[in-house]
Amino acid sequence: MPELPDYRRAAVRITTELARRYGSHPALALWHVHNEYGAPVSDDYSPTSAAAFRTWLADRYGDLDGVNRAWGTRFWGQVYGAWEHVDVPAVAPSVVNPAQRLDFARFTNDALLACFVAERDAIRAHSTVPVTTNFMAASCPSTDLWAWGREVDIVSNDHYLDAADPRNEVTLALAADLTRSVAGGKPWLLLEHSTSGVNWQPRNVAKRAGEMARNAFSHLGRGADAIMFFQWRASRSGAEKFHSAMLPHAGTSSRVWREVVELGGALAGLDEMRGSRVRADVAILWDYESFWAQDLEWRPSEDVSHRERIEAFYDRFWRDGLTVDMAHPGQDLSGYRLVVAPASYLLTADDAANLTAYVAGGGTLVTSFFSAVVDEHDAVHPGGFVAPLRDALGLTVEEFLPLREGEQVRVSLDDRVFGTARTEIVADVWADDVALAGAEVVAGYVDGPAAGGPAVTRNAHGAGTGWYVSTRVDVDALATLLAPVYAKAGITPSDTPEGLEVVVRHGDDASYTVAINHLGTRATLGTHGTDLLTNETADGFEVPAGGVRVVRTPNPSH
Amino acid sequence: MPELPDYRRAAVRITTELARRYGSHPALALWHVHNEYGAPVSDDYSPTSAAAFRTWLADRYGDLDGVNRAWGTRFWGQVYGAWEHVDVPAVAPSVVNPAQRLDFARFTNDALLACFVAERDAIRAHSTVPVTTNFMAASCPSTDLWAWGREVDIVSNDHYLDAADPRNEVTLALAADLTRSVAGGKPWLLLEHSTSGVNWQPRNVAKRAGEMARNAFSHLGRGADAIMFFQWRASRSGAEKFHSAMLPHAGTSSRVWREVVELGGALAGLDEMRGSRVRADVAILWDYESFWAQDLEWRPSEDVSHRERIEAFYDRFWRDGLTVDMAHPGQDLSGYRLVVAPASYLLTADDAANLTAYVAGGGTLVTSFFSAVVDEHDAVHPGGFVAPLRDALGLTVEEFLPLREGEQVRVSLDDRVFGTARTEIVADVWADDVALAGAEVVAGYVDGPAAGGPAVTRNAHGAGTGWYVSTRVDVDALATLLAPVYAKAGITPSDTPEGLEVVVRHGDDASYTVAINHLGTRATLGTHGTDLLTNETADGFEVPAGGVRVVRTPNPSH
Amino acid sequence: MPELPDYRRAAVRITTELARRYGSHPALALWHVHNEYGAPVSDDYSPTSAAAFRTWLADRYGDLDGVNRAWGTRFWGQVYGAWEHVDVPAVAPSVVNPAQRLDFARFTNDALLACFVAERDAIRAHSTVPVTTNFMAASCPSTDLWAWGREVDIVSNDHYLDAADPRNEVTLALAADLTRSVAGGKPWLLLEHSTSGVNWQPRNVAKRAGEMARNAFSHLGRGADAIMFFQWRASRSGAEKFHSAMLPHAGTSSRVWREVVELGGALAGLDEMRGSRVRADVAILWDYESFWAQDLEWRPSEDVSHRERIEAFYDRFWRDGLTVDMAHPGQDLSGYRLVVAPASYLLTADDAANLTAYVAGGGTLVTSFFSAVVDEHDAVHPGGFVAPLRDALGLTVEEFLPLREGEQVRVSLDDRVFGTARTEIVADVWADDVALAGAEVVAGYVDGPAAGGPAVTRNAHGAGTGWYVSTRVDVDALATLLAPVYAKAGITPSDTPEGLEVVVRHGDDASYTVAINHLGTRATLGTHGTDLLTNETADGFEVPAGGVRVVRTPNPSH
Repeated sequence: MPELPDYRRAAVRITTELARRYGSHPALALWHVHNEYGAPVSDDYSPTSAAAFRTWLADRYGDLDGVNRAWGTRFWGQVYGAWEHVDVPAVAPSVVNPAQRLDFARFTNDALLACFVAERDAIRAHSTVPVTTNFMAASCPSTDLWAWGREVDIVSNDHYLDAADPRNEVTLALAADLTRSVAGGKPWLLLEHSTSGVNWQPRNVAKRAGEMARNAFSHLGRGADAIMFFQWRASRSGAEKFHSAMLPHAGTSSRVWREVVELGGALAGLDEMRGSRVRADVAILWDYESFWAQDLEWRPSEDVSHRERIEAFYDRFWRDGLTVDMAHPGQDLSGYRLVVAPASYLLTADDAANLTAYVAGGGTLVTSFFSAVVDEHDAVHPGGFVAPLRDALGLTVEEFLPLREGEQVRVSLDDRVFGTARTEIVADVWADDVALAGAEVVAGYVDGPAAGGPAVTRNAHGAGTGWYVSTRVDVDALATLLAPVYAKAGITPSDTPEGLEVVVRHGDDASYTVAINHLGTRATLGTHGTDLLTNETADGFEVPAGGVRVVRTPNPSH
Repeated sequence: MPELPDYRRAAVRITTELARRYGSHPALALWHVHNEYGAPVSDDYSPTSAAAFRTWLADRYGDLDGVNRAWGTRFWGQVYGAWEHVDVPAVAPSVVNPAQRLDFARFTNDALLACFVAERDAIRAHSTVPVTTNFMAASCPSTDLWAWGREVDIVSNDHYLDAADPRNEVTLALAADLTRSVAGGKPWLLLEHSTSGVNWQPRNVAKRAGEMARNAFSHLGRGADAIMFFQWRASRSGAEKFHSAMLPHAGTSSRVWREVVELGGALAGLDEMRGSRVRADVAILWDYESFWAQDLEWRPSEDVSHRERIEAFYDRFWRDGLTVDMAHPGQDLSGYRLVVAPASYLLTADDAANLTAYVAGGGTLVTSFFSAVVDEHDAVHPGGFVAPLRDALGLTVEEFLPLREGEQVRVSLDDRVFGTARTEIVADVWADDVALAGAEVVAGYVDGPAAGGPAVTRNAHGAGTGWYVSTRVDVDALATLLAPVYAKAGITPSDTPEGLEVVVRHGDDASYTVAINHLGTRATLGTHGTDLLTNETADGFEVPAGGVRVVRTPNPSH
Repeated sequence: MPELPDYRRAAVRITTELARRYGSHPALALWHVHNEYGAPVSDDYSPTSAAAFRTWLADRYGDLDGVNRAWGTRFWGQVYGAWEHVDVPAVAPSVVNPAQRLDFARFTNDALLACFVAERDAIRAHSTVPVTTNFMAASCPSTDLWAWGREVDIVSNDHYLDAADPRNEVTLALAADLTRSVAGGKPWLLLEHSTSGVNWQPRNVAKRAGEMARNAFSHLGRGADAIMFFQWRASRSGAEKFHSAMLPHAGTSSRVWREVVELGGALAGLDEMRGSRVRADVAILWDYESFWAQDLEWRPSEDVSHRERIEAFYDRFWRDGLTVDMAHPGQDLSGYRLVVAPASYLLTADDAANLTAYVAGGGTLVTSFFSAVVDEHDAVHPGGFVAPLRDALGLTVEEFLPLREGEQVRVSLDDRVFGTARTEIVADVWADDVALAGAEVVAGYVDGPAAGGPAVTRNAHGAGTGWYVSTRVDVDALATLLAPVYAKAGITPSDTPEGLEVVVRHGDDASYTVAINHLGTRATLGTHGTDLLTNETADGFEVPAGGVRVVRTPNPSH
C-alpha cells in the first residue's frame, strides 16, 4: 500500500489520540473514522504524490520496462528511460496516456485505503469495538468498494436521493443492493440519509409525508440493520443550515419531527430481523476499474455510459419485482440464474473466462454493447472487440458504429423468439458491425449504419446461453427483450403491481417480507404472516397508498 | 474603513496631483473620480487583502470569539484559535463558510468606499467643486450604494440597456428609480448612457429612431438633472470602437448625430425642471447585503432569484403606472402606502421590527417567499423561517418546498377576495409549508407538494395588513393578486394605456409630467398644462407613437 | 523572423541529427517535419516569448511611437513610454487592446514558421529530398498558410470529417480547394485522412461502405497527387486506439482492410493524372488575418462568423457544380469571373483597391455584410464602414443593425432582377443601415430594424459589377440571389444532379473528370472518354449510387 503523505499521517495521529482516550469508554459502540472517503475528488498531483505513485508502479510492474509495456508507451513515442520522468497525469497539451490515468485511479484508491487501514489499526491498538467508515456506495467516483468492504469491520453507507428524479426510489434501491453486495451479503448500516431535502442539489426537493419511512424501509429490506440520519438538529449557521434534520428549524411541532419519532418506534419493533439475509437470482456486473477506464478521454461516443446501462437494466428488474445483486466479474457467479454485463468496457481475460465458465456451467449471460473491449491496461484485447467473450456469445465486433446525436434506428424482432405482440423496437446511441461466430440472430437492424446486420443474438455455450444486445434500448423495450431470457433462465417476474416494492430478508426462523407502496392507491401483498408494524396476522395484506408492511412468515419446520 | 493597499494609494496620489493642478481652474464644474467602482469584480484575495480583512474583522467583532460566534464556526469544526488562521474566502475543497463570504463582501465594499473617500478628501483639500463617481445602480454586484450615496456630493449613474430584452425600458426605469432612491430622493446625474448600441453585449442591438430620446426622458422624468453620454466621438481604434457615440464613424450626416443635436436642443428648454422631485406611494425593498447573501452556495433552489422577484413586482407597477422607490428595509417607510419585500432572504431582526412597525402603523406589506430567512450573519432566525415577520404576517414557514425544474402548481383563489373573473392561477419554482399563526388564507394550493395548504395569506396587524405570497407568480397573475392589495392600500393604478410611461416631477411652482410613448400608435395623456418641448398649451395631449411630452402644470396657488 | 525559444531550438537540433544520419539514404523520398503546426493552440505567453514579441514589434514598427500609433493606444490611456511595458496579451481585468492581440497572432504565426524554416534549412544542409509539413488547411487557427505555402517544397494536408455533419463531403471539398489554393494551384499531397471513424470527436461516426473512396477521390479531383492515411495499423494501447486504421483491430478479414486494398489498386491506375491542374471561375476570399481579427472580443454580434458565410457561399457553389478557389484579397483576381467577399471584416486599403480594380476591369464582386470594416491594425476605416469599397459597391454603411437572437427579417426582391418565382426571402443575424452612393437597390427590408431600407444592392463600376448583401441568407435563398449574378458574370451552373460531385483536372494531353456520387441512386455523367477505373470507353457514364468514375477525355489536338 502507498506510503502516507504528511496530511494523512496527521489524520492517523489524531485517530490514535482519540482511540487512546476513548478506546475503553463504556458508551462506545462503534468507531466511524473519516467522512465519505474519496468524495467528491481525492486526486493528489503534488510532488509527494508523484513520488508515491512511482513507488506504487515499481511495486506493481517491477521495473520501467514493465511500466512501458503496461502503458503501451511505444505509441506516440512515450517510452520512459528514467523513473523521474514518470509523473502524475497532470494537464497536457493533448490527452494523457489512458493506461497511466487508469493506474493513477488505482493508486489513488490504494492511497485512500492505506489511510483508512492505518486509522483502523491505530484504533485496534486501543479498542476492541468495531471500526467502520461511511461509503457512498453508488456515488463515489474514486473508491473500489470491493476492496474497502474487506477492510471495514462492518459496511456502512450514506445515501441521498437525487431530488430531480421523480422515481428516485429505484436508484435508492440500487445503492442499497450495491452496499449489501460490497458487504458480501452481510447486513450493513445506513449511517446517513436525510429526513427531508438536502442543501447541495440545484433544487432541494423536500420529502413528503411518508417518504422518509419508505426510504428507510427500502434500505432495511435490502439488508440494513440500522437506519441513521445526518443530522440530529439543524444548525442555524454554516454551510448546511438548509439541510434537513431530525429536529428541524421549525422544532418539535413539525411534520418531520413527528415522522422521525414514529420511524424510531417502528424500527424498535423489528429487532428480530437483525442478521437476516437477502437472496438474489440476478446479478449485474459492477466493476470500479471499468468505470474509471470508461471515463477517460477519446472514447467512441460520449453518449455511452456504463452507469446508464446499469441503471436501465436495474430499473427493468425493479419493475419486474426481481431482487438484484451487484457482482464483480471475477467472483463466483454460479449462484445466479442471470448475469448482466452492461457496457462492461474493461473486462480482463481472466474475468471473461470466469463469465464464459459461468455460461458453460448453465448460466445465462446478457451482454450489452461496448463490453469486453479492453484489458486491465486499457489495451484493446487481441482478436478485436468482445473477443474474450467470443465463446460465450458466439461473435466478435468488427467495428463500432456510434450513432449521431439523437439518431434512432429500428430493430426488427424474430417473432419465434419474442412473440408477435411487438415485432419492432427503436434504439439509439450505438450499433455494432457484428461478426457472427456461431450465434443465432434473433433481432436485426432495419435501418441505420448496420442496416441488415444483427442487432440482438443468442448463443448456446455448454449448458448455458449468451445473449448480446448491440444497441441502446430503453426500459420498456428491455421488457420485450428480456421475456425469453427470463423464460430460459427460469426466472419469474413478480405479479405484484409495478410500484409496490417487495423485498424479502431470510432469517433462521422466519422470512421478513418488506413491502413498500410507492403508488397513490393501496395495493395487495399476497404474503401470509404477521405484520410486525401492526401485529396483524393475515393471509395477505393491503398496503396503504404510500405505506409500508413488514410481514414475518415463519420458516417451514425442518 | 480598511487601510488602502499600495495600488489604491497610487490612485489617491494621482488624484492629489490632479486636484493640486486643476483645483481652482475656472472651467472646472465637477470632479468625477475613478470609473464604475466595483464593476465587474473587485475581490482581492492577496495577502495584503487578507491582513486588511483581519483588521476589519477585529474592528467589527472585537476578538476572535466574536468572529467565531458571528460565523457559527462550531459547525463543521471551524473554530478559530489564532487570527493568522483567518483568511479570505478562497477556493476550498468544499464550500466556504457563508458568513465568512458575506463579511468578505462587506469588507470589499468598505475597502472600495475607503478608496473613494480618500480620493474625494484629497480633492477637497484643493478644490471646492463637488465630487462624484459614476454608479452602476442596478448592475454592480459589489457596492452598497446606500452607503456610497452618503459620501458623494451628488449621485451619478451609468445606464446601458440590456439589448436582448425587447422591453428594456422597464429595467431602465428601475435603474433610474434606484439611483434616485440611493440619492435620498435628490436629483442626480445620468453620467453615461449610449446614443445607440454598445459593444460588449452578445448582440449589440442599435437604438432605433426616437429610442435614445425616450431613454433620456425616462431618466429625466425619474429625477435626472443632466443627461450625458459615453462617448463624444467614436474612436477608430481600441476596445470600444463599435460602441456608439454622439459623433459616430459615419459622421455628422448620420441619424445618430441628428438625434443627439435634437436632444440637446430639447433639454436646453427644460432648465426650470432642475431640482424638482419625484414622489412615490410604493416602495420595493432593496438591500445589497441580501443580494450578497442569496448569491452564496447551497441555497434551497437555484431557481430563486432576489432580482427576478424585484423585477416582476417592478414590472407590475410599471404597467400599472405606479411610481416606485427602492427602499432599505431599515429606513423610515411611513410615507409609503405599499411596501414589497421580494425574496428578502437576509432581513435583520431590527429591520423586521421596522417592517412590523410599519404595518402596525397602517402600512401594507406584501412579502414574497424566501424572505426573512437569515440574520446579518446568514444564520437562520430563531423560531424558524419568516419568524421575525410572524406578527406582521400571522404565520411562519415550517418547511421550504422547492419545485422541480419546470414544475408548475395550481393555486385556487378565494373569490370573496379576488372576485370571480379569475379563480385559479398557475405558479412555479417554490411552495411553502406554511404554519398559520393568525393569518387568513386567501388562496390555496390545488396540487403540488403543498396541496391543500395556504398559498397566499392576509393578516391584520395593528392598523395595517401583511400579505404573504408563498410561490412564484408571473406579472399577469400579480395583477390579480395585487388588485385587493391596491384597494386596501388606497392605491389607484393609472388609466393611461400600458406602454405610455408617465412620471411626474414636483417643483416649487409647478409639476412636470413626463410622458414617454413606447407604443407604435399615438396615445392620450390627460394632463393639462404646457408642453415644454413644443410650447403648446392644452387640456390634454396626444403623445405621438414613440414620442415624448413634458407638460408643466402650475401648482395651485396657496 | 522571430528568434527561436529554447524548446524550438531543441526541435531544430533533433532535425539536424536526423538529416545528418538519413539525408542520403536511398529509400528517402520526402521529409515531413513536425506535426500539424499550430494545432490546436500555440500561443506562448512566457517571458521569452514577450521578449521576442518586443523584438518583432521593433522590427515591424521601428519605434514605440509606431506601436502606439498602430495600436491606437491613446484610447483608454494605454500609451507606452517604455518597451518593457509592452507585453504579450495575457488575461486582463477588461479586454486587451485588439490591435495588440492581432499583432500577437501575427507574431505567433511568424514564430512557428521560423521554426519550420529552421528545420527545413537544417535538412537542406544534408539532403536534396523535398521537405513538407502537414497543414490542417481549414481547421488550424494559428497559421497563415498563404505564407507557409511559399516555404514548403510541396504542400501537404491532413483532413478529417466532421462526423456530426451528415453532408461533410462539402466541407471536405472546401478544405481540398483551400489546400490547392495555398499551394498556388500546384498538386499537393493528402498526408492524412482516416479509413473510417476517428477517436477525438464527441461521437466518432464510422465511414460506411464506399465512403472512404468517395472522400479520397474528392481530394484527388481537387488536386491531390497522393492519398495517404493515419494510421497503418491500429495500436492496442494509447490515446488513439479507437482511431480507425488501414489495418484495424479486426484484422484483414474486415471491410475496412478490403476497401483500403481496393483503393490502393484503383489509385495505382491513375499515374497519368499526376501534375494535372484544376481550374476555377469562382473565388472566395480567405484571409487568415481577417479570421484572427474577427475572433477578438467585443464585436457587434456573436452570431456573425466569417467561416459560416464562407461555408454558406461555398455550399451554394458546390450544389451548383462550380469549382471554387480560395483567394487572398491582395492577389491577382483577374482570372475569375466571380469573387465573393464573405464577411471580410479586416480588409486593408490596398486589398480593397485590388478588389475595386478587379471590378473596374470587368469582374463581378459579391460582398457580404461586415466586410471592409477595419484596416490591418483593427482600426475602423476612415469614412466609415465599407468605405474602402465605396467605389466598387456604390454605398457605405451608416450603422450596423444586429438582430436579436433568433430574430428574422423579411426581404422583398425586385422581380425585374430576380424574376417572379420568388418575391420574398427571410434573413437573420444582421441588417445594415445602408447609405447609398450610386448603387441600385434590388431588394429591400420589409420589416426589422432597417424596414424600408436597402437589403441587397447592385453597382456598376467600370466594366464590372459590385453586389452587396447586407443580411444573412441561407443556402437556398442564395440560389435566388445569385441567379442574376451568375447570368451577368457568364457563369453556368452545372446541370448534373445535386449530390453528383464533378471536378475536372487538366493535363497536357487530356482532362480527367472525377465524378463522385453521394446519392443513394445512380446518376448520369455526360462526359465522354475512358473511365480509368474500369477501362470502359463511352459517350457518357452511369455513376453507381455511392460510386466513383474517373474519365479521361483527350484534349483536342492543336
